[in-house]
Amino acid sequence: MSRCFVTGGAGFVGSNLVDRLLEDGHKVIVYDNFSTGHEEFLMKAKSSPNFKLIKGDLLDYGYLRDAMKNSDIVFHLAANADVRFGLEDPMRDLEQNTIVTSSVLEAMRKNNIKKIVFSSTGSVYGATNNFPTPENDCFPIQTSLYGASKLACEGLIQAYCEGYDFQAWIFRFVSILGERYTHGHVCDFYRKLQDNPNEMEVLGNGMQSKSYLYVQDCIDAIFHLTRNTTDKINIFNLGVEDYCTVNDSIGWITKNLGLTPELKYTGGNQGWIGDNPTIYLDVKKAEEFGWKAKVSIKDAVIKTLEYLKGFDG
Amino acid sequence: MSRCFVTGGAGFVGSNLVDRLLEDGHKVIVYDNFSTGHEEFLMKAKSSPNFKLIKGDLLDYGYLRDAMKNSDIVFHLAANADVRFGLEDPMRDLEQNTIVTSSVLEAMRKNNIKKIVFSSTGSVYGATNNFPTPENDCFPIQTSLYGASKLACEGLIQAYCEGYDFQAWIFRFVSILGERYTHGHVCDFYRKLQDNPNEMEVLGNGMQSKSYLYVQDCIDAIFHLTRNTTDKINIFNLGVEDYCTVNDSIGWITKNLGLTPELKYTGGNQGWIGDNPTIYLDVKKAEEFGWKAKVSIKDAVIKTLEYLKGFDG
Repeated sequence: MSRCFVTGGAGFVGSNLVDRLLEDGHKVIVYDNFSTGHEEFLMKAKSSPNFKLIKGDLLDYGYLRDAMKNSDIVFHLAANADVRFGLEDPMRDLEQNTIVTSSVLEAMRKNNIKKIVFSSTGSVYGATNNFPTPENDCFPIQTSLYGASKLACEGLIQAYCEGYDFQAWIFRFVSILGERYTHGHVCDFYRKLQDNPNEMEVLGNGMQSKSYLYVQDCIDAIFHLTRNTTDKINIFNLGVEDYCTVNDSIGWITKNLGLTPELKYTGGNQGWIGDNPTIYLDVKKAEEFGWKAKVSIKDAVIKTLEYLKGFDG
Repeated sequence: MSRCFVTGGAGFVGSNLVDRLLEDGHKVIVYDNFSTGHEEFLMKAKSSPNFKLIKGDLLDYGYLRDAMKNSDIVFHLAANADVRFGLEDPMRDLEQNTIVTSSVLEAMRKNNIKKIVFSSTGSVYGATNNFPTPENDCFPIQTSLYGASKLACEGLIQAYCEGYDFQAWIFRFVSILGERYTHGHVCDFYRKLQDNPNEMEVLGNGMQSKSYLYVQDCIDAIFHLTRNTTDKINIFNLGVEDYCTVNDSIGWITKNLGLTPELKYTGGNQGWIGDNPTIYLDVKKAEEFGWKAKVSIKDAVIKTLEYLKGFDG
């Protein structure tokens, strides 16, 4: 039994992780400012005597430091996870990702907590042309403020490992799908089709190729890989051995909804400035350590859609 | 003639750059908070009608933005450049390097200035074992808060290039030596030997291997490579095609001073926690673009020593 401190624990991935940690018999403190988290995601968790919710901001360093006291391990999942709108407010990724992570690391150091699990992203590979992209890809060139901020977080965590004897698990996620999904292309398309089932705008040319991972597979990976690795710094790509195009996903979604909308493409190979036209990660390293995704991208898209339908119903 | 805005222009490399920019007929504004800069380094510059000094802090965003108005290009050299003491104050590199760089980029964006020259470091290659290290080395693992912060700066600059159509020159320096040198191993050894010419403590085992570049060679490189490259993002290692050990450098220094101190090694292959035992950069890319260092490491060490002697005399 560990005492787990989960930042962003009221979010999509965070709340699913919290449920699984509680099922596994751990004590869990969720620290969340509910800027994008949802208290209803913690309904099940709240029924456990091992659960505690603290509403707080990660930039409120003193409050965070006190809240974290006596924890054994920190799962730092809180982040601005919106890649697309970084350019509208260029300070947001710096503040909510880089500076927040520094605050979390300092609170850990002051509390003598030395184990951190961090949700990074395939976006750190930036302008790479190497697909599927391995963890030891060549030196990255960033294309988004989001990717830049997550790379900055990784660097801070690694420097704390070297300087203060921390141990870290850095997971570079593809996009995650599944229950409690709150933003991303499946949401966007579903809402657009609710508004107008006959016509839908598609950002870019529909050929952007991305990989996706089902949230329970993601949490399986976090559990399995933190338990089966012992290096000071453990870095893993998390994804499936596959990718799909935007058009593939539109096909699955519209078929599931029984719709045949006319598609209006905005054109170009990017959905927006800074969009990586391809995100497809090499997951051989995680597989060598004994984890492999069970749910296909198509099934993950359908599960997400079913969740969104239920939420509306 | 360009209107050049130089952050950290009262520092070691900055003030040497300023003198050369003025000689070359450019207008120069130096923005410096004199936390580590020296006003006497700008004595020559101050005699030019094309020179203006603004005392200000880069974290004072409004003041910075107004100061930068009407500039054509920003040379962002201001930084906490002390790698060794990062662990004593883990917020310093984040604030003085990462957050400051974000402030500089935002001020540029608001003023519609799109060209930035940035002084990065070979420390961004962190835990690499690939020597000499090329610009496209494998994905880095950071070992110091300094390296982590400079990598974060690079990422921010690259994201601004992609998102706001900036053009950047990122120079990854080895350690720089020469006139106006203010900190580093030559200073340390010189001062220790002034205090006690008979005995000297050496951090580590004396086998740490580092590369060094003479400051005027560094500035030649900045001039040559900014003029002869046109990519959106231009990244170059700057150094010589050579390295030396700490013991090599001690030999040159003690011979020059006519001393034969007893050396007391603290031991271990690092000088301090986070010290990279080897920094040796591959400079073929810069050489392919027509620049090559003229001064050897040994001559750069001796020039630095002569400068320090004159400063004391």
